[in-house]
Amino acid sequence: MQPIGVIKTSFESGMEIPIQSSKSETIGEAIIENKFKAGLDSLDLFSHVILLYWFHRASFAKPKVVPYLGKSERGLFSTRAPSRPNPIGISIVELLEIEDNRLVFKGADMLNGSPLIDIKPFIPEFDCRPDANSGWLREYLDKEGQQFLGDTRFQE
Amino acid sequence: MQPIGVIKTSFESGMEIPIQSSKSETIGEAIIENKFKAGLDSLDLFSHVILLYWFHRASFAKPKVVPYLGKSERGLFSTRAPSRPNPIGISIVELLEIEDNRLVFKGADMLNGSPLIDIKPFIPEFDCRPDANSGWLREYLDKEGQQFLGDTRFQE
Repeated sequence: MQPIGVIKTSFESGMEIPIQSSKSETIGEAIIENKFKAGLDSLDLFSHVILLYWFHRASFAKPKVVPYLGKSERGLFSTRAPSRPNPIGISIVELLEIEDNRLVFKGADMLNGSPLIDIKPFIPEFDCRPDANSGWLREYLDKEGQQFLGDTRFQE
Repeated sequence: MQPIGVIKTSFESGMEIPIQSSKSETIGEAIIENKFKAGLDSLDLFSHVILLYWFHRASFAKPKVVPYLGKSERGLFSTRAPSRPNPIGISIVELLEIEDNRLVFKGADMLNGSPLIDIKPFIPEFDCRPDANSGWLREYLDKEGQQFLGDTRFQE
């Protein structure tokens, strides 16, 4: 594993971060290392990309957690909590601009300084499953006035 | 990075593998190491999960590749080719059964023996972007008789 770049956002703590990119209107930047810059060719043809990054400030993984949504303890792998055996985050973000080695995107939900480990094009025909259910999150997604913000519970 | 388990499929070579889980009806299994088993609690409430795994047989990454679809060279990060600086694969699969430390799923598109590195619940409200475009893949997705099968070009 090696970083291919770094993600710049305005978020310096887990507190008040949108818990998913789909719940964020915040702009962020991904700065790609020069040696990987040629790999960005044709990426500007896509409206959305998948960023993979390291949850570099996540606390040690536990098999059961109380996630941001809900008060019940859940198996870690049934949650998107950042404290995982391999703390890799996935965010689907809207691509606004690519200029040289710098991507500007909408939908930031990661801490400033997160090491970027991959960029993949988002392709709705491959990556959407509109018929999927939402498991234990269903009731929270529908709840009036539900907040979708994090805190520091999974942070070192 | 540490494997949390292993993926078992019928695919021993990149040849003839469906190039995306959305194009696969094939059944696969993920076997989770016992020490991570408690993390599977509540996962059975979801219809679909995201598997993250290591492309353990991918060849060395190059900044430009000719992907499976199309004949043009593209920047690596605008493709889903497995030969990447950090060769991590993402597959959204349909969960059929969880029994002890064994997940059975539909949508296998990975090589047998791929090290499993994470499982995340798929949540359509977070993970779908139905309004996203499909970039350079558009023309191939609509092409009559288009095959969605891989080969060994990215394999060691």
